[in-house]
Amino acid sequence: MKTLQDYIDKLNSLNFKEMYNNDFFLTWEKTDEELEAIWTVADALRFMRENNISTKVFESGLGISLFRDNSTRTRFSFASACNLLGLEVQDLDEGKSQVAHGETVRETANMVSFMADVIGIRDDMYIGKGNAYMHEFMDAVTQGNKDGILEQRPSLVNLQCDIDHPTQSMSDALHIINEFGGLENLKGKKLAMTWAYSPSYGKPLSVPQGIIGLMTRMGMEVVLAHPEGYEVMPEVAEIAKANAEKSGGSFRISNDMADAFKDADIVYPKSWAPFAAMEKRTNLYGEGDTDGIKALEKELLAQNANHKDWCCTEELMATTKDGKALYMHCLPADINDVSCKDGEVVASVFDRYRDPLYKEASYKPYVIAAMIFLSKFANPQETLKKLETEKTPRIFE
Amino acid sequence: MKTLQDYIDKLNSLNFKEMYNNDFFLTWEKTDEELEAIWTVADALRFMRENNISTKVFESGLGISLFRDNSTRTRFSFASACNLLGLEVQDLDEGKSQVAHGETVRETANMVSFMADVIGIRDDMYIGKGNAYMHEFMDAVTQGNKDGILEQRPSLVNLQCDIDHPTQSMSDALHIINEFGGLENLKGKKLAMTWAYSPSYGKPLSVPQGIIGLMTRMGMEVVLAHPEGYEVMPEVAEIAKANAEKSGGSFRISNDMADAFKDADIVYPKSWAPFAAMEKRTNLYGEGDTDGIKALEKELLAQNANHKDWCCTEELMATTKDGKALYMHCLPADINDVSCKDGEVVASVFDRYRDPLYKEASYKPYVIAAMIFLSKFANPQETLKKLETEKTPRIFE
Amino acid sequence: MKTLQDYIDKLNSLNFKEMYNNDFFLTWEKTDEELEAIWTVADALRFMRENNISTKVFESGLGISLFRDNSTRTRFSFASACNLLGLEVQDLDEGKSQVAHGETVRETANMVSFMADVIGIRDDMYIGKGNAYMHEFMDAVTQGNKDGILEQRPSLVNLQCDIDHPTQSMSDALHIINEFGGLENLKGKKLAMTWAYSPSYGKPLSVPQGIIGLMTRMGMEVVLAHPEGYEVMPEVAEIAKANAEKSGGSFRISNDMADAFKDADIVYPKSWAPFAAMEKRTNLYGEGDTDGIKALEKELLAQNANHKDWCCTEELMATTKDGKALYMHCLPADINDVSCKDGEVVASVFDRYRDPLYKEASYKPYVIAAMIFLSKFANPQETLKKLETEKTPRIFE
Repeated sequence: MKTLQDYIDKLNSLNFKEMYNNDFFLTWEKTDEELEAIWTVADALRFMRENNISTKVFESGLGISLFRDNSTRTRFSFASACNLLGLEVQDLDEGKSQVAHGETVRETANMVSFMADVIGIRDDMYIGKGNAYMHEFMDAVTQGNKDGILEQRPSLVNLQCDIDHPTQSMSDALHIINEFGGLENLKGKKLAMTWAYSPSYGKPLSVPQGIIGLMTRMGMEVVLAHPEGYEVMPEVAEIAKANAEKSGGSFRISNDMADAFKDADIVYPKSWAPFAAMEKRTNLYGEGDTDGIKALEKELLAQNANHKDWCCTEELMATTKDGKALYMHCLPADINDVSCKDGEVVASVFDRYRDPLYKEASYKPYVIAAMIFLSKFANPQETLKKLETEKTPRIFE
Repeated sequence: MKTLQDYIDKLNSLNFKEMYNNDFFLTWEKTDEELEAIWTVADALRFMRENNISTKVFESGLGISLFRDNSTRTRFSFASACNLLGLEVQDLDEGKSQVAHGETVRETANMVSFMADVIGIRDDMYIGKGNAYMHEFMDAVTQGNKDGILEQRPSLVNLQCDIDHPTQSMSDALHIINEFGGLENLKGKKLAMTWAYSPSYGKPLSVPQGIIGLMTRMGMEVVLAHPEGYEVMPEVAEIAKANAEKSGGSFRISNDMADAFKDADIVYPKSWAPFAAMEKRTNLYGEGDTDGIKALEKELLAQNANHKDWCCTEELMATTKDGKALYMHCLPADINDVSCKDGEVVASVFDRYRDPLYKEASYKPYVIAAMIFLSKFANPQETLKKLETEKTPRIFE
Repeated sequence: MKTLQDYIDKLNSLNFKEMYNNDFFLTWEKTDEELEAIWTVADALRFMRENNISTKVFESGLGISLFRDNSTRTRFSFASACNLLGLEVQDLDEGKSQVAHGETVRETANMVSFMADVIGIRDDMYIGKGNAYMHEFMDAVTQGNKDGILEQRPSLVNLQCDIDHPTQSMSDALHIINEFGGLENLKGKKLAMTWAYSPSYGKPLSVPQGIIGLMTRMGMEVVLAHPEGYEVMPEVAEIAKANAEKSGGSFRISNDMADAFKDADIVYPKSWAPFAAMEKRTNLYGEGDTDGIKALEKELLAQNANHKDWCCTEELMATTKDGKALYMHCLPADINDVSCKDGEVVASVFDRYRDPLYKEASYKPYVIAAMIFLSKFANPQETLKKLETEKTPRIFE
């Protein structure tokens, strides 16, 4: 039986002091020990919640959320994480604000941050834009804090950008760490991050990029598989390659789904748009070329339709390690004959893995809360210990 | 002068142990003692608030609200109830989420419930759908909790479905209990739940159904009056009949508003749509038959217009018990020459009963809070006692 | 070094007992000592937050916000203020409610206020409407409280009406009090509240009106400058005149921007619509005269375009006191070649004053919180003292 002290002991063995008062943009900007600190705090917060120990560390304070597109699970994960720590979520929706009407990012960033302890941004639509926007936003509040305008500097949690989806990949990683009985057990495991057919086009690249950018750090054999033309950002592929070399694992790109699935311990079949097409679309939007966008969409759908055979079938699953690879997805999935005629996965596979899929998703609120926690407390071990000592129940008893 | 102990003593005399970790779908699925427990806790929470004793029993936790149509009073009642207990409301609006884009109910239910202690759903538009949706949703989270995905199982508060509107009818009941000086004084009182004309069509049946399904349990003489063709769901009429037999009251259906008002102690004149027409509309929506829907709407408006004489006038009020029946409405009402030319009630009657009408509405936040409280605490008497002992002020003093 | 006792001592010297359980509509309805109490409490709350002392005085309770048009900064300021004191914001958006569908103000006001401690309303669009609506709303809850419907009476914070924008002008005032080293140092300072060109029309009059209605009370030399035809409400100009006489300052209206800027200590160049035109537009909206509205808009834009020379340039700034007047704006500003071609201010001036402008805005959450605080606590000195004694940290430590 784990105790809170086990998590504290683990934290004591790690160096993560740079996380204090800092942001989370991309997993590959963080050290291995910093990532482990996040998983450890996430597990500790979950342990405390399950034992009815309040982890409310803020008496007041706001968590600002800025979603540039719709979202159920990430929105609820961020709201849950903020609530768990005592922060109130305030949405900065374009519909509710004057963001779209000529305000500069710098001004908006400061105006919403007078009492903000954290800001979560999701901006994944346009290549070259989302991550850059987050940096612009955070530069503004850093300056505002230095200039004495902001009493505190809110920390960023990247809730998905054009490059990475760190709250997703970190939750996915925590899921497999727990499924395989520890980080050390991931060494040598084969993970297939593969493209899959979807009747929609233009799904963000940040999930496959996030997965190959993170999972290559654990000594795993990572294969990224996709049809020709569905390349991810070359910079991220380079990072995955370098990571694998350093961790003693491997990283390769394949154009064959069967090759990726063969003997895999973990499969992650999911649709995404080609990087080059997304870049083109971003430019067309920039030029306001509506006809060009429509033509591109048509082209992309036709291109997708050539690859309906990229589907996670029972036959493919049978070729994985003992026929029992762990099936993963960030959800929602395009399920054959359920959410669409042809999709990413057949219904029988999806159904069999429903529980692990939901568990995979359940880590996200804790991962986000851990990111906030580590950015706000200089000595999180001490803070956790004090919370345990005070033992305020989450539900009155 | 009441003390908190009076409410606790009352609770000690009641059996409501099945409410713990359970949901509230329909009043007729609950025992009389369970309903009394709700009214008792609602009054106790109100007593504590009025005496500046905090009833914040959650340090953190979410109350999820899902409204399938617009709502002011129910939305604010749910938000007030959650806030009173320490839960933060998070809306699952279709506009804000991907609910409409092919996610299954099972998935959404789990994805939003990782840190949810309660979920309030309003889904009253389509016959055969709303209550069924709530069950589907709750089955999913029950399973999710069993499978270890959800650390806790959120409880449901039905904020209005196609069959019942239990937070409304329970608030209405608490209102008349207090107006008539106690539950025991309702025995033998005549209540007229009558249809009334409105220039809009398609108002939900859940209010009249909720009223006849609940008020027949208190030994009252309940008359449901409406023009021919405005029948409610036959199953609910059967329940009302059975209830009346058991409680020593009576239940009958009349097609004469004057007959219903005659000597009534309580009148509840309100428009609703015919059950059969709502069922037809539901099917037309299912078939996507826009022309059929438009034709039906026209037909329903014409049908309504034949019954403009179904209005709560001074003349009708004069025929009630001592000319002073308690006038009730769930609000907003269609008031003649105020909100429309011809409506449900004349302005002079509505004006005279404004205070009681607002009081009637004021019970809803407490009734909802009581439903949550009873589903979350195994021994609510003890919890209330401890809150009184701790005596944290709601407003600092 | 200030201590909390300094603020408490200051409060002890002021008479503000009428603020308890009262509303904030217009600054000129408040005494000088009441305004000073607000600034003092605002500074005290800021002092406590900066020293990590929680000012959460509500364990539960709602702050209702009602915005009739979009808003970023005021929305976030209100949310921050409520959160700082422990109130949860619940928006009464038309989109989310049935407000637009025939409900009377009286009914809505009561229905949303069962657990509301404060209500913030922004209704600045139509002349003669916003302030009147607020009064109607507050009369309703006052009555509801008297009649025993509302357990408590929520207080109003006017978040901008057609007449005044008191949370803006009070924040602006606190800004200059701090910039000039104290209220007493404002005596004799010259403040230029001047119109400036903007490519949009119909900006509210409440900012210039709020500024001349408040700043004339501090012994300042206030000049209101605008092109002919851009007059503000005559009643407010009268108030400004009377204020200036009483305070030993001055108030005059000029049609010459250079005249206003000459030797000014403070300049506030900002666009607004002519009062007469806004009144006309309000009537056209009332009559539903869409063509008339369009014609008026065209006319107003053409009228504006005649005054592009009303811009805050470096040349004008050079004519101010030592060339270093404090530049103020309520934000967002129309900046030349940044947010528009021609606007209210050249980019180099705006850039130079960015820090003071953001500081100016940073007072708003504290001013709003102070207004709430003073309306909710009969003895705020004692309440502040107790908060300091309890010393609950805002962020756990």
